[in-house]
Amino acid sequence: MDINPKYRKPFPASQKIYLSGKYHPDIRVPMREVTLTDGNKFPVYDTSGIYTDPTAHIDITEGLPPIRADWIEKREDTELYQGRVVKAADDGYADAHKTAHQDSEKLQRIPRRAKSGKNVSQMHYARQGIITPEMEYVAIRESIHHKAIKDIEREARLAGHSWGAQIPQEITPEFVRDEVARGRAIIPANINHPEVEPMIIGRNFLVKINANIGNSAVTSSIAEEVEKLVLGVRWGADNMMDLSTGKNIHSTRDFVIRNSPVPVGTVPIYQALEKVGGVAEDLTWEIFRDVLIEQAEQGVDYFTIHAGVLLRYVPLAVRRLAGIVSRGGSIMAKWCLSHHKENFLYEHFEDICEIMKTYDVSFSLGDGLRPGALADANDAAQFGELETLGELTQIAWKHDVQTMIEGPGHVPMHLIKENMDKQLRDCNEAPFYTLGPLTTDIAPGYDHLTSGIGAAMIGWYGTAMLCYVTPKEHLGLPNSEDVKQGIIAYKIAAHAADVAKGHPVARHRDDALSRARFDFRWEDQFNLSLDPETAKAFHDETLPQESAKTAEFCSMCGPKFCSMHISKELKEAVEDL
Amino acid sequence: MDINPKYRKPFPASQKIYLSGKYHPDIRVPMREVTLTDGNKFPVYDTSGIYTDPTAHIDITEGLPPIRADWIEKREDTELYQGRVVKAADDGYADAHKTAHQDSEKLQRIPRRAKSGKNVSQMHYARQGIITPEMEYVAIRESIHHKAIKDIEREARLAGHSWGAQIPQEITPEFVRDEVARGRAIIPANINHPEVEPMIIGRNFLVKINANIGNSAVTSSIAEEVEKLVLGVRWGADNMMDLSTGKNIHSTRDFVIRNSPVPVGTVPIYQALEKVGGVAEDLTWEIFRDVLIEQAEQGVDYFTIHAGVLLRYVPLAVRRLAGIVSRGGSIMAKWCLSHHKENFLYEHFEDICEIMKTYDVSFSLGDGLRPGALADANDAAQFGELETLGELTQIAWKHDVQTMIEGPGHVPMHLIKENMDKQLRDCNEAPFYTLGPLTTDIAPGYDHLTSGIGAAMIGWYGTAMLCYVTPKEHLGLPNSEDVKQGIIAYKIAAHAADVAKGHPVARHRDDALSRARFDFRWEDQFNLSLDPETAKAFHDETLPQESAKTAEFCSMCGPKFCSMHISKELKEAVEDL
Repeated sequence: MDINPKYRKPFPASQKIYLSGKYHPDIRVPMREVTLTDGNKFPVYDTSGIYTDPTAHIDITEGLPPIRADWIEKREDTELYQGRVVKAADDGYADAHKTAHQDSEKLQRIPRRAKSGKNVSQMHYARQGIITPEMEYVAIRESIHHKAIKDIEREARLAGHSWGAQIPQEITPEFVRDEVARGRAIIPANINHPEVEPMIIGRNFLVKINANIGNSAVTSSIAEEVEKLVLGVRWGADNMMDLSTGKNIHSTRDFVIRNSPVPVGTVPIYQALEKVGGVAEDLTWEIFRDVLIEQAEQGVDYFTIHAGVLLRYVPLAVRRLAGIVSRGGSIMAKWCLSHHKENFLYEHFEDICEIMKTYDVSFSLGDGLRPGALADANDAAQFGELETLGELTQIAWKHDVQTMIEGPGHVPMHLIKENMDKQLRDCNEAPFYTLGPLTTDIAPGYDHLTSGIGAAMIGWYGTAMLCYVTPKEHLGLPNSEDVKQGIIAYKIAAHAADVAKGHPVARHRDDALSRARFDFRWEDQFNLSLDPETAKAFHDETLPQESAKTAEFCSMCGPKFCSMHISKELKEAVEDL
Repeated sequence: MDINPKYRKPFPASQKIYLSGKYHPDIRVPMREVTLTDGNKFPVYDTSGIYTDPTAHIDITEGLPPIRADWIEKREDTELYQGRVVKAADDGYADAHKTAHQDSEKLQRIPRRAKSGKNVSQMHYARQGIITPEMEYVAIRESIHHKAIKDIEREARLAGHSWGAQIPQEITPEFVRDEVARGRAIIPANINHPEVEPMIIGRNFLVKINANIGNSAVTSSIAEEVEKLVLGVRWGADNMMDLSTGKNIHSTRDFVIRNSPVPVGTVPIYQALEKVGGVAEDLTWEIFRDVLIEQAEQGVDYFTIHAGVLLRYVPLAVRRLAGIVSRGGSIMAKWCLSHHKENFLYEHFEDICEIMKTYDVSFSLGDGLRPGALADANDAAQFGELETLGELTQIAWKHDVQTMIEGPGHVPMHLIKENMDKQLRDCNEAPFYTLGPLTTDIAPGYDHLTSGIGAAMIGWYGTAMLCYVTPKEHLGLPNSEDVKQGIIAYKIAAHAADVAKGHPVARHRDDALSRARFDFRWEDQFNLSLDPETAKAFHDETLPQESAKTAEFCSMCGPKFCSMHISKELKEAVEDL
């Protein structure tokens, strides 16, 4: 099965290049190099995988090449084994039923796990002083432009305000290792997801974004979800979460993971709930544990685990204006309340850590009690859970398990910093991964925007990864166009945050684009932008002629009123004085 | 000539209501009252004028009813007079040419001016302790919801952080008067624009937004501009600027002002430049002065005047990455440099004040040297000009002329607060009126979003009015859809700012909408939102059935995974304990 060609088309004036490592000469770190009309080359960070490489052969029923396979094997601390038997029930069917799974034979892999007594997490390696290929890979990715930055671009006025982050001038493999060892960054990379192009999540690195995909009981199909995945990485998603519920949940995940060049996260409780017929009270640790193994063997890179939803927080949360708005949070709250017992994810947290380190699955500690309305922001339920997540982080770190912390939600601007600061303090700088936050509740249909504001701010304050919100939030399942709109909004938020926090290479692209703009190199302005197609189409709407692409004006002001044209004349005049 | 019916359709479940005053019982302050499915009424601030009143007869060749005519006349400090003779040249034609002006006979009015020795500005009245109808009108508009707010909504956590603004719990006519007298707020309301529904711009009031319309030499027509005006106020523009250049500039303005229920601003230098054939060097004070009179007689409510672009700042600005990006700024810089003389707007500033107070035109002191790229933000050119605008504010205030200050532009997030604080200090809290700011340069095609982030932040920090940016910024003249997208983005930014700065009535709407959301009153959720049509359409995309409008789930999570549904069960369970 092939991909819609429009999602494989290379970006205009762009080609993929690959850089190799110093410690690991065989790694091939991808970038997209834009050729400008003045002959200069401008590389940009590239999440699109080989989908934008016109020479690559891709068949989504076979999956992407396993670029990490050798790296993993050479560490000699893992083994192939006879995994769990996949059942029709994993896809939500009775045993005799033919499932979508049977159409994905070529996507099946023999699973790999840590040898007995071994811990295969990147954190574990880092704490032993090892620089893995994954670490060097992300260091190269993060260092883009480093050599091209001129001193003049570094003047104090523009150097950013980091709020205590410690971003170095150059991202080295050693720095990556130290940050992962310290727990301040994670590299989500399950040993059963060798197709992943490693990336790093931490406050001292570029701010990343996550896009959610996944079918629900009401709508969508596997093919659509894979299309959203490819579209997502094309526009810049650094991570994808597969939030499928309903039927074919296992098979959808096979398709998503095997075809994903970016880390894939899930919320295992969704599948567990499917397996108990949607009755939260019937959930058990044994069923949940089986789902963790199932998904770890498939290659999920991080699990959202709502272990901080404690029994005592539930009454605090239900009294709120909007109650509990996290699906996982509400399920666990219901379980706790109906059994009047402590959350079994909390009780079994160390058991979960054992699984995580066997496959290097990272924790994304879920914020089951995030506020779903401004009125509930930063309240006792939310902050109580956050404190518990801080405790759990220490336990995870004791096991060398990579950990990030999920955050809200709906938060008015004046409470965002308080939330960020508390997370940094309580969770000892473990990466924060927030959904927005939305800064107002009054604009359903535009929540990529209400939340883009909050995302940019919290990214600046120290959040490491921003989970996107699409225009359809609160209204329905996003389609492909919604996914794109959500991603572009979040690329903007993440980049604005990188500039403001003073990431040393971030503003280089703004300067290059503004220079192209000032020089009336229209094509370069389009091609350096986040969405060249849209920029060009908008310009073409009023000035479609080829000559307009070098004209010293646009239709906004017309030729006589172009300030930049006049500025050029002034520059010459001042130089002549 | 009638308006496209889709721009006159009342909002769903909404009707216009009018409140009257205590001091001025004859004023009729419009609001839009939304009737909720539970029978409650929810009034919202309404900028749409009588266009959304189905009983109103409207003909754009005749203009709106002059609601302020009596108020102005009763003050007995103005007189009708034989105004300046309108010439074909005002529309950019040779004298013999038939202009669009000749099609707008019914829009012509006999101009009014202050009687000799009188000052008719709202600031002047305020300083004499007078509460004008305009002041009481805006006090009522700003007090919406005041009586409905419950104490529980005022808890400290949610009270906002005002950064030193002094927003009272209730907006009284006396407070309005004091703020206008102090110069901390303006009510733009030319005595020749009696159609205007008064509104106030100041940091201690709701954040306002401005939308720009206007043809350029390349595209657009008068009818299109009026359509954008009606569309603009429908979606919530508090002000409109007519930035037309090219032909028919005078006649376009007749159509815009006579049909505008919101204040209209212009940049008079654009028309002056047209009158000297586009040659900046040929501009003179006399030509400019004539344009000011022409536009003041038509009823323009505020003028952007680039009097702060001083000769000595020009070399600082041309050395920048993006030079000068303000059209007016570049024109004045060119004039200064070619004559090697000080800016004639600066030299004649007191003469301009005399004109302003004769008609009550407000100053919008232009930021001709605003940064056009992140790299130029908060630099010596920008801040030098800002200091000069501070000096000019004092001169304007000496004349009791209402004054606001324009601001940038392109500013990374970490420099926004510095810019705001400097403006408050240098301009003694005269209202700040900013364009965005854009927080990154890399997303042409999405600059409503790059700038919406900065707009929300600077609004929170103290900016009184946000000038919108459309998705077409940098690429072409916006069409109607772009105007709408820009406005919605800025309504979101302004509202998020109101909530964060602690405007006492702002969050009431968020709470009402979130309550509707939590109660699965879908229709109420749509109808309380900024764009009910879009919210409903998005929901209908996956669940078009009527029954889905009361269903306890949507297509995003499906029935089994709806956290809010589970929350409701939990609430009952907790209450039963």
